[in-house]
Amino acid sequence: MSVDPTPWPGPDKGALFVVTGASGTGKTTLVKAALQAIPSIGWSVSATTRPPREGELDGRDYHFLSHADFDALVADSALLEWAAVYGNRYGTPRAPVAAALDAGRSILLEIDLLGARQVKAAMPEAVLVFVLPPHAGAIEERLRARSTDSEEVIRRRVSQADDQLAGCGEFDYLVVNDVLDAAHVRFQSVLWAELQRRARNPRLVSTFGRV
Amino acid sequence: MSVDPTPWPGPDKGALFVVTGASGTGKTTLVKAALQAIPSIGWSVSATTRPPREGELDGRDYHFLSHADFDALVADSALLEWAAVYGNRYGTPRAPVAAALDAGRSILLEIDLLGARQVKAAMPEAVLVFVLPPHAGAIEERLRARSTDSEEVIRRRVSQADDQLAGCGEFDYLVVNDVLDAAHVRFQSVLWAELQRRARNPRLVSTFGRV
Repeated sequence: MSVDPTPWPGPDKGALFVVTGASGTGKTTLVKAALQAIPSIGWSVSATTRPPREGELDGRDYHFLSHADFDALVADSALLEWAAVYGNRYGTPRAPVAAALDAGRSILLEIDLLGARQVKAAMPEAVLVFVLPPHAGAIEERLRARSTDSEEVIRRRVSQADDQLAGCGEFDYLVVNDVLDAAHVRFQSVLWAELQRRARNPRLVSTFGRV
Repeated sequence: MSVDPTPWPGPDKGALFVVTGASGTGKTTLVKAALQAIPSIGWSVSATTRPPREGELDGRDYHFLSHADFDALVADSALLEWAAVYGNRYGTPRAPVAAALDAGRSILLEIDLLGARQVKAAMPEAVLVFVLPPHAGAIEERLRARSTDSEEVIRRRVSQADDQLAGCGEFDYLVVNDVLDAAHVRFQSVLWAELQRRARNPRLVSTFGRV
């Protein structure tokens, strides 16, 4: 194996990855491993109106905002997506994401279907990846196998999962999480491939091609 | 690690991959390893007007054709690309490639820039991958380091390499072959990613999404 001291430094223009999937499909496991494996991909610090918990730092864990400041971001279209959860709001500030992409760093957002749609509308060049369960019915089987939940809870979770899955046809890539090792490879493949798109690498074209 | 007995069977619609690069950039090494690693990607049997050599089988090594039969394929637009080399012609028949893609099998063509342009024109959905050397001048350095070639031969080979590199801006993906292990991963990532494109997986969408 030849080892060269000047490995590819990554793209000039980062990619914005949006990862969505029903809960219980291993999405978070795939995302965590990918962020460790591909150092040029980071995450974004969300803005929120909920108060900081002990140990949380403003700007590191969240941007902690007043409701009025959050309203102002929404009014300015300064959030790529936002949602209300139990009376508090959470969102992804656009400016730091745009700055990262311009500097060649990529960002991965793990968000739900409604958030993914908002990001696609705000930044059409975002790359949407949906993580699918191994087969139809797998999520319900898993919830029932745990057998700790009431019938009502199971039905609600299956229904929530179905609501997410309903949107999979709107995504650019579909990663089936069947065999976890294989799914890690296939998920990270999507990220690596997108980083190598010619459109994200104008410097390679100007170095090697006659432009 | 969870292991599921029903791994993803691959896409319903195969991808046509076109791989191009200057000679001496390790393109063939990357292609061979990828074809071994990803069984659903195969190659295409070329048509040629050159006579069979000993041990070569018609339909396995090449489709051996008369000049008249080759002319007929060209006239019918039945070749995705073709070129003349030392008075003989070589080309990629369109029908078996189209049949493979429809059956969910993918095809990889390792061809030069002019061939890649022909394929893109004939089948715009083809995925074009260009393999780049680690840095500008690397090909010439390598030729000179071997020091077996005359100055004239070196100049001709560098010029041929530059002619290929000139077209890299027309490709969908740019894979830099710097550290070979890393390049294998990044090259195979492009192939895996494309197989997971939603457009190639209508069955996943109809299974999981409400369409």
